[in-house]
Amino acid sequence: MRKVGIIGVGHVGATVAYTLFTHGTVDEMVLIDKNEDKVNAEYNDLHDTLARNNYYVNIRKQDWDALEDADIIVTAFGDIAASVKNNDRFGEFDLNAKNAKEVGKKIKESGFHGVIINISNPCDAITAILQETTGFKKNRVFGTGTFLDTARMQRIVGEKLNQDPKNVEGWVLGEHGSLQFTAWSTVRVNNKIAYQLFGEEQQEEISEQSNKNSFIVANGKGYTSYAIATCAVKLMEAVFSDANFYAPVSAYDPQYKTYIGYPAIIGRDGIEELIELKLTSEENEKLEKAANKIKEHLEQLR
Amino acid sequence: MRKVGIIGVGHVGATVAYTLFTHGTVDEMVLIDKNEDKVNAEYNDLHDTLARNNYYVNIRKQDWDALEDADIIVTAFGDIAASVKNNDRFGEFDLNAKNAKEVGKKIKESGFHGVIINISNPCDAITAILQETTGFKKNRVFGTGTFLDTARMQRIVGEKLNQDPKNVEGWVLGEHGSLQFTAWSTVRVNNKIAYQLFGEEQQEEISEQSNKNSFIVANGKGYTSYAIATCAVKLMEAVFSDANFYAPVSAYDPQYKTYIGYPAIIGRDGIEELIELKLTSEENEKLEKAANKIKEHLEQLR
Amino acid sequence: MRKVGIIGVGHVGATVAYTLFTHGTVDEMVLIDKNEDKVNAEYNDLHDTLARNNYYVNIRKQDWDALEDADIIVTAFGDIAASVKNNDRFGEFDLNAKNAKEVGKKIKESGFHGVIINISNPCDAITAILQETTGFKKNRVFGTGTFLDTARMQRIVGEKLNQDPKNVEGWVLGEHGSLQFTAWSTVRVNNKIAYQLFGEEQQEEISEQSNKNSFIVANGKGYTSYAIATCAVKLMEAVFSDANFYAPVSAYDPQYKTYIGYPAIIGRDGIEELIELKLTSEENEKLEKAANKIKEHLEQLR
Amino acid sequence: MRKVGIIGVGHVGATVAYTLFTHGTVDEMVLIDKNEDKVNAEYNDLHDTLARNNYYVNIRKQDWDALEDADIIVTAFGDIAASVKNNDRFGEFDLNAKNAKEVGKKIKESGFHGVIINISNPCDAITAILQETTGFKKNRVFGTGTFLDTARMQRIVGEKLNQDPKNVEGWVLGEHGSLQFTAWSTVRVNNKIAYQLFGEEQQEEISEQSNKNSFIVANGKGYTSYAIATCAVKLMEAVFSDANFYAPVSAYDPQYKTYIGYPAIIGRDGIEELIELKLTSEENEKLEKAANKIKEHLEQLR
Repeated sequence: MRKVGIIGVGHVGATVAYTLFTHGTVDEMVLIDKNEDKVNAEYNDLHDTLARNNYYVNIRKQDWDALEDADIIVTAFGDIAASVKNNDRFGEFDLNAKNAKEVGKKIKESGFHGVIINISNPCDAITAILQETTGFKKNRVFGTGTFLDTARMQRIVGEKLNQDPKNVEGWVLGEHGSLQFTAWSTVRVNNKIAYQLFGEEQQEEISEQSNKNSFIVANGKGYTSYAIATCAVKLMEAVFSDANFYAPVSAYDPQYKTYIGYPAIIGRDGIEELIELKLTSEENEKLEKAANKIKEHLEQLR
Repeated sequence: MRKVGIIGVGHVGATVAYTLFTHGTVDEMVLIDKNEDKVNAEYNDLHDTLARNNYYVNIRKQDWDALEDADIIVTAFGDIAASVKNNDRFGEFDLNAKNAKEVGKKIKESGFHGVIINISNPCDAITAILQETTGFKKNRVFGTGTFLDTARMQRIVGEKLNQDPKNVEGWVLGEHGSLQFTAWSTVRVNNKIAYQLFGEEQQEEISEQSNKNSFIVANGKGYTSYAIATCAVKLMEAVFSDANFYAPVSAYDPQYKTYIGYPAIIGRDGIEELIELKLTSEENEKLEKAANKIKEHLEQLR
Repeated sequence: MRKVGIIGVGHVGATVAYTLFTHGTVDEMVLIDKNEDKVNAEYNDLHDTLARNNYYVNIRKQDWDALEDADIIVTAFGDIAASVKNNDRFGEFDLNAKNAKEVGKKIKESGFHGVIINISNPCDAITAILQETTGFKKNRVFGTGTFLDTARMQRIVGEKLNQDPKNVEGWVLGEHGSLQFTAWSTVRVNNKIAYQLFGEEQQEEISEQSNKNSFIVANGKGYTSYAIATCAVKLMEAVFSDANFYAPVSAYDPQYKTYIGYPAIIGRDGIEELIELKLTSEENEKLEKAANKIKEHLEQLR
Repeated sequence: MRKVGIIGVGHVGATVAYTLFTHGTVDEMVLIDKNEDKVNAEYNDLHDTLARNNYYVNIRKQDWDALEDADIIVTAFGDIAASVKNNDRFGEFDLNAKNAKEVGKKIKESGFHGVIINISNPCDAITAILQETTGFKKNRVFGTGTFLDTARMQRIVGEKLNQDPKNVEGWVLGEHGSLQFTAWSTVRVNNKIAYQLFGEEQQEEISEQSNKNSFIVANGKGYTSYAIATCAVKLMEAVFSDANFYAPVSAYDPQYKTYIGYPAIIGRDGIEELIELKLTSEENEKLEKAANKIKEHLEQLR
């Protein structure tokens, strides 16, 4: 039986829950949120769905103890308004650093021994705090990181060339934030390397658009939800089925001594392996710059 | 190929879109909303999902002409705040009556010749206006009506008896609003008729709770979305596949001369048939009372 | 994580595996069959599907030890040719009684502590042998029984009335074999009781057709696979999610002291409850006759 | 609404039907086969599934006229025994060339104006005959070709490196038969090019195994079904949703003047575009050799 905890059922956490629910992905989910009315509302809205849903799912709420035998915990707490206002996900840092410490402590106390997938922003830094607070092995705690930004890049590239985004390979790396970048040396469309498809200027423009797009969405509806939820669910599926699925996520990189968006193999134990890329020196510099930003923010916290 | 239009992409319309999207239910969807930023945001959030979604879906926005060859249009416009403030879905009546006339006119002009499924509240009255304004045959326009309230009743009954809500049969009828009622003479759980399971008082309590639950959800998160979206999608699937699926929806009832929540057979042409129930005289009175309320509001409008 | 064992990967067992596989229902499956070539073929065919399947699934073969931590074991061994030749599922009895003892013993030795769902025919008798040999509590071992025959009855009734089979409620009870019967007192279509819809003769005819249909399929393609596999998967989903789902299956009935097709509530522990029906005296007689047949065959075995 | 015809409901055609059925992919399917008993059996087995299936699907049988407004026709006729006996798919050539002419003629007469996806073997040659006989534009007729062989290669490479087959990119090209070959210059695993992962000998071995695997499956169970069905369904989904999905299929290649396994973009009109690869001269030779074999067989036919 498959069991998950979702901590923070704002728009993102609730959409993750709904997605798992309508696909029958899990047998049991535990919804936890500081906002009692919100968690009650989602709990009731999902229960009201049961008679029409193709699958039965057991849903609990506000029960930390029930996390003990969960396979996966998704953390999706925070206040996106703070990110939108600052036009930077570090706008949520102070709030979520505090949240992460509380949540991490409670997860640890619950006896949970599965995998944590963090969505809360700034994703890389908050993932680091969750790992530190729980004391779990670094592979068992990772963040959605640039898996979402990569999907956005694939979509933009796909649109420019009138292709299914799935025809686009390659990664957005670095911070899930302003210091993310498309590693063009890894990008291929229909077996053609991107250098042949886009000039330098266009590469720059696409790279920036991946990040900007999130703010178009967030400004238009107050939050982003669908793309991030679908990314999180894909990663959860890879953990459940021990798929050894290759994806860029926020993983602890021993070289940079921080969590950062980098390709990894996802399986039952979370990060099964980091896949070393041969990046250009320019790309390596960008990666280092992103790593430094994340580490600086974490150090300021101490 | 399956094509739908969704008019009104607030929380409900957007959740319908997302549900269709993640299940690959449709090949093409047209999103339309007065709020340009909102429709842009949903359009972008869904597009950003494409690289992670198991299915490709073509999405257009704000294109009324594209409705011409759609199979189904879902209408989900409105402002739920007005309903919540008034604790009655007729709080949205003035606004949505106006919306329905505009939308109906544009649908007609588009050359659309499929089925309209209305979610906008007050559901029964707005469905009536959409039918009238488009001039479509009455079977081709119907509302989600008490299909949702029935799901809520099934859930409450299921919870009280520790049963899967799918083990509960029977209908909530009447207004999708305060004059809805559980037709207990139709309710059976695991082949036992409900009269043997619940006393009169408990019947009353459950019947009221089905309606109240929606306001618990709406108060807690500002809207309801998951249960209603799943109900709408089930009905859409029945239209696509011409399933002759039995469900209580807001259908035009010649006996009461109005749209009202009543069991019908759903297929390619919308309402294929109304299924006459043998209700108790008390239930018939409640149905009539609900019908009168809906008709009165519609008459006041003229 | 969800794990199943499938013992016997003939057409039925393989179709169960494929269905679970393409829907991502399980994370791990163990395929076991006496025919090494057949299990190798299915193992390879499913593995060849992985690159095109929306879900990753781990597949093992011929590994009895791997059953220890499985949630569910499906047994689908046998030789349908023996049933088809005899035009009676007891044609497989001698063979499958022997199989069931071997399989039951090995399941017990594996340390498995989940739920067994038996498909092997004659379903009721073989389920009994599996329960006896494993020594598991009676609720933890059940058969698909008349869940399939009920689906066939729903389909025939639906076709006669031009309705979705899902609009048809009610049960086929008794033996999953020639002594099955439609319990017409339980059958309703769109809230109308069947007595009003079909005359006695037609009732008889439909009841017989449910059983005959299986032989039309078996004669035409050499076996039946799709309907039975889908029935088994529905029951597996109910066990995984602890759904308390109401369905007629082959459950141990203390009144008749045998496994027999009767409505039960299906959850994590298998049969959570038998639901007592108020049958007509004629129906009760048929049930008793079926029970006696099953018991007699089992007694002859001793 | 989505409608398909399946011509030939042997193991492969029936599995395609079942897969579409359990996922609710289509609203209507027309099953056609020379073997009346077989098509009856599948028709009945699928209908018996309706009450347990999450989706309703309309199924017709033996109705060529009903193909007129189908979106897609899948052809899956043939006699795999002839291929297995000869250890070469051209063992079915004489039989299927005749079948293809008959089927093509009837498709043309039906007024069908959608896309044909051919599975029948030898796939490339039979696709050519179907195109010729129907007179349809070459893009509207294509075969599953090496899309399946590519899945097999991805699986073998994945297993060797303990990776999800989806982490493996690159193509098997040429004949869907003995002259297929892995185009190693296109293969990458987790962004590493295959030349760095496998020595020449190992490349050779893997390339051969992709083809051999199909015979292991066919010898073990008498046919192959799951992987090929899933491949066909993926391509059908791309046609329905006009996905512009990149996949190696049997497409008409003007350079070689024959149908042959080569990467193409799949959308509503079938082959939207061929994607030219920069192959090594050795790979180009293999491609030419395969093309010549296919053309020679077709010429012998004239």
